[in-house]
Amino acid sequence: MLCGTHHAGSSAPLSMLGGMAKGATVSGFPEYLPQERAVEQKMMDIVRGVFELNGFLGIETRAVETGASLLKKGETSKQIYLLSRLQDVGHEDDTPLPERLGLHFDLTVPLSRYVVEHSGDIVFPFKRYQIQKVWRGERPQEGRFREFVQADIDVVGNGDLPEHYETEVPLVMLEALSRLESLGLPHVTMHVNNRRLSEGFYRAIGLSDVEGVLREVDKLDKTSPDEVARQLEKTCGADERQARACLDLAEIRTTDAGELRTKFDALCEKYGVDTQGEHYAAAIKGLSTVSTIITKADRIRPGSVIADLAIARGLDYYTGSVYETFVDGVPQLGSICSGGRYDNLASQGSHKYPGVGMSIGLSRLLAYLLHTAGARASRMSPAAVLVGVWNEDDRDRSDEIAAELRNRGIDADVAPKAQKIGKQIRYASRLGIPYVWLPADPNAEAGSENATDQVRNILSGDQQQGDVSTWQPDEALAQRTIVTGEAD
Amino acid sequence: MLCGTHHAGSSAPLSMLGGMAKGATVSGFPEYLPQERAVEQKMMDIVRGVFELNGFLGIETRAVETGASLLKKGETSKQIYLLSRLQDVGHEDDTPLPERLGLHFDLTVPLSRYVVEHSGDIVFPFKRYQIQKVWRGERPQEGRFREFVQADIDVVGNGDLPEHYETEVPLVMLEALSRLESLGLPHVTMHVNNRRLSEGFYRAIGLSDVEGVLREVDKLDKTSPDEVARQLEKTCGADERQARACLDLAEIRTTDAGELRTKFDALCEKYGVDTQGEHYAAAIKGLSTVSTIITKADRIRPGSVIADLAIARGLDYYTGSVYETFVDGVPQLGSICSGGRYDNLASQGSHKYPGVGMSIGLSRLLAYLLHTAGARASRMSPAAVLVGVWNEDDRDRSDEIAAELRNRGIDADVAPKAQKIGKQIRYASRLGIPYVWLPADPNAEAGSENATDQVRNILSGDQQQGDVSTWQPDEALAQRTIVTGEAD
Repeated sequence: MLCGTHHAGSSAPLSMLGGMAKGATVSGFPEYLPQERAVEQKMMDIVRGVFELNGFLGIETRAVETGASLLKKGETSKQIYLLSRLQDVGHEDDTPLPERLGLHFDLTVPLSRYVVEHSGDIVFPFKRYQIQKVWRGERPQEGRFREFVQADIDVVGNGDLPEHYETEVPLVMLEALSRLESLGLPHVTMHVNNRRLSEGFYRAIGLSDVEGVLREVDKLDKTSPDEVARQLEKTCGADERQARACLDLAEIRTTDAGELRTKFDALCEKYGVDTQGEHYAAAIKGLSTVSTIITKADRIRPGSVIADLAIARGLDYYTGSVYETFVDGVPQLGSICSGGRYDNLASQGSHKYPGVGMSIGLSRLLAYLLHTAGARASRMSPAAVLVGVWNEDDRDRSDEIAAELRNRGIDADVAPKAQKIGKQIRYASRLGIPYVWLPADPNAEAGSENATDQVRNILSGDQQQGDVSTWQPDEALAQRTIVTGEAD
Repeated sequence: MLCGTHHAGSSAPLSMLGGMAKGATVSGFPEYLPQERAVEQKMMDIVRGVFELNGFLGIETRAVETGASLLKKGETSKQIYLLSRLQDVGHEDDTPLPERLGLHFDLTVPLSRYVVEHSGDIVFPFKRYQIQKVWRGERPQEGRFREFVQADIDVVGNGDLPEHYETEVPLVMLEALSRLESLGLPHVTMHVNNRRLSEGFYRAIGLSDVEGVLREVDKLDKTSPDEVARQLEKTCGADERQARACLDLAEIRTTDAGELRTKFDALCEKYGVDTQGEHYAAAIKGLSTVSTIITKADRIRPGSVIADLAIARGLDYYTGSVYETFVDGVPQLGSICSGGRYDNLASQGSHKYPGVGMSIGLSRLLAYLLHTAGARASRMSPAAVLVGVWNEDDRDRSDEIAAELRNRGIDADVAPKAQKIGKQIRYASRLGIPYVWLPADPNAEAGSENATDQVRNILSGDQQQGDVSTWQPDEALAQRTIVTGEAD
């Protein structure tokens, strides 16, 4: 049933991200402090907002799938966590693998199951988003994420799926990623290729082991072109000239549709491709899709999408467009948003559900935002105001002030103890709460400052009389926000 | 390290909730359609908002804990899912249980670990909220949730924790639950008791097996008082008179602090309790906490909190207040928000972290809202507008209109295909999208209606000229909302 997985997220070791969060006491399971978690929450809110703005429907699937869903025939190399009940320890093998439950390792396997199960209740094309944790049973030594959050969008058709979604899905993801710039994410560049284009060219020059060629070409970012050429000859039946053609194709990179066509045709001429044949025709079909994407993207988000015929990852299962996205200047992060078109997302008998989708590796981006961009909550507590307490007998009055502020939408906390006011201010300060509300002191002399409610901005030291029914915090201090860069 | 778990959520079989969601193809792992998931998302947004309004800090902990954390010595009756890597199948036993990873079954175990690990980086009292899935390795036949969402708040002190949090935490939860009334939740009533009160009374009348008595009294809602009395005599060393005293205590229920004291003292007199002794003094201390809670709650949320000395669940590990919350008129749902004070939430050597916390069983409430209250999204798609497409060559124009609407914060979708306009309207209608935007037809005669952009309200049939830079949907239709009750 399953034919693909958007893979952004877990591949490069975490050491490349500049270390784990402090609290990852179980390797690969990151955990964050409240002011860091606020960044993750904000990321999720931002991408959710963009997905809904574009008409995507949110779903959540269960954390588990059956072994039968998670494992394609015999594919036991997958990094999967299987579950067993504590009571069944020692008897796990009584249940055959296909019937056991395992944690999902992506959101594509669950989607394909969900679509088939609910095909009668959903509207096609089914535009769905899903922001959830996934788990990979990596060996702890690998230093990879074993738990991370993905944000996926997919458009799934019933039988067929218009090609224009291959342009729209990446543009939605670019919009989401551009909004993450407010949290410190640099500009990103999306690289686009197309399975038909690559396969058509390889076949047109006489290569038939398309999967093998793609696998070798995919190594270009890790090894030398000479080595890739050697492997193409050794394992894919290529001669020297064919291997060179593959490398030449992988060199084509452009944001201009005209240039893409010119360069491709020049290559075809160089290698004597039959431009009347079916393989050339197929390649041109793929090229035309890439052209549409870069042309439209260039108009809407200039400089964000590039045709890159070296992109080969995933082309073994994607059937049309394929996308990878890199953070400008941070290639070591790997692709942080990947996906493509896969005509066999799911099937029911002979009926097919084609899809086009992409996945943002949110945990990977979060690690970058926290450790490199210095993103963090502008304050630890969401509260804008800490209401002080003169003595425990007056706590009710402080609670009433806080309740009134909250009624007006102002996040408020109350001092834990009726300590000296300096200690209460220190508590606010440690939580980053900018205002301390000093209720009228019941023992103060009439007419004195303490006889009325006072509000102190503990950042500026400014103190003013406060009326709980009208007082407003400065706009810049009203909400906890996300800030970036060096700490003050 | 761990001493308690807020237990709202999983106890009663799902059959009591009026059946599972349609999509629960693996028993106990509920899954929802998009218009149902929207209700769950809204619930989570509402409770998150209330928690932050009250100055609670959000955290998220990893889904796994070590066996050592999950299992107290020898306690292997727990419903826990253990993980094993696919590659280790058949060799699971090579890793000793305390070192294996398992899915957390609540959010209290993770909190106690988190607090100890991060004690140097957090501010005490630590007010934290956490809204996350938890898993219980129940037998599938039991028909209970095996995956569900809890929303927890806890206040954790470093060494000590002021008693006033025993009043504030339940009031925050009541605020959250009252805001869920907008989704169809009826009014709820919270029942409060106190470990010191019960224990002090039992000891004062000469009973020493306090845990045993609590366990039997907890059965009062399932069995007859006579049977409970028999068991108290049989298993807890009570004589007939002591057993009757326990039942009499459990009958005290009131929202009035004065009445609470009067009834309790009458009981003490009836059973000859030494009112100068330490046990009576301890009981009165617990009673005083209960009185404070019901008095304050009665002022802020009249009729929401009741002193109920029959509440015994959890009193074996809670050390102070204990809370259970029932939906008015729906007792079969069980407690949907429970918790209490536990002086040994976590410890580091001899250092203690006392806590007071509660947990809402969101999945349980969601099941009620969907199946009984009829809650659902007002429309399936978040989009307020579907932009039509006259023919595929004009799709760019439709995309631009949608982009402009989105820039102005209006959720918009674009028709999947340039079909007959009736089919496009039908697509919008199936998704519940109220408006269809008809771009100016490039082939229309100048001056004709089709020569300008038109917006049709497909609910009313009303059609007007539309200007993409100024048009606004009716306020009632701008956002997808949650509606309740019978479908139209």
